[in-house]
Amino acid sequence: MAKIPGNPCTSSCPIKRAMDILDGKWTMLIIRDLLGGKKRFGELRYSLEGVSPKMLTQRLKQLEEEQIIRKISYPVMPPKVEYELTEKGHQLRPVIESLAVWGNELI
Amino acid sequence: MAKIPGNPCTSSCPIKRAMDILDGKWTMLIIRDLLGGKKRFGELRYSLEGVSPKMLTQRLKQLEEEQIIRKISYPVMPPKVEYELTEKGHQLRPVIESLAVWGNELI
Repeated sequence: MAKIPGNPCTSSCPIKRAMDILDGKWTMLIIRDLLGGKKRFGELRYSLEGVSPKMLTQRLKQLEEEQIIRKISYPVMPPKVEYELTEKGHQLRPVIESLAVWGNELI
Repeated sequence: MAKIPGNPCTSSCPIKRAMDILDGKWTMLIIRDLLGGKKRFGELRYSLEGVSPKMLTQRLKQLEEEQIIRKISYPVMPPKVEYELTEKGHQLRPVIESLAVWGNELI
């Protein structure tokens, strides 16, 4: 059982560091979708009911900068782009699964 | 392994339902702190570097309404109030632990 660090909540706290990156409602849902495999922008937009194109673009850019996802551009016309999780992104599966269990059983 | 529901991200998705409640950087950190036992407002404020009293008050109220935490008022003078996790709140331990593992190993 991972030791939950005591207080205070300094920047060295792994949970704070994780939340600094993962904060934001859409972030966890994007990761959940990409755990299901590569997705195109439009597929993500359809799946994430209510997300604006601007917010989705911003979130994907941030996740790419954090090396949680990668963007794949295909050399075809018309241009085709897909997003997929990196290994670092795939390591978030336990977080998403534990959210699913909690969401299923407790709300 | 909890089945991660396919798309789309309708309100029935347990992860979406969980994130509707848990969204917001401070929420996970408040839960992390209360996993360590009851805390007073001042203790939480000290632990959560940078949180404003207004934001902390708002977040605690929301978590209380969602029955994730409870507020304990002691019949003493001066008034003493503490916060603790409910059983529903304690069920979030796996989410916090998986965030700690990810935060430790990957960032």
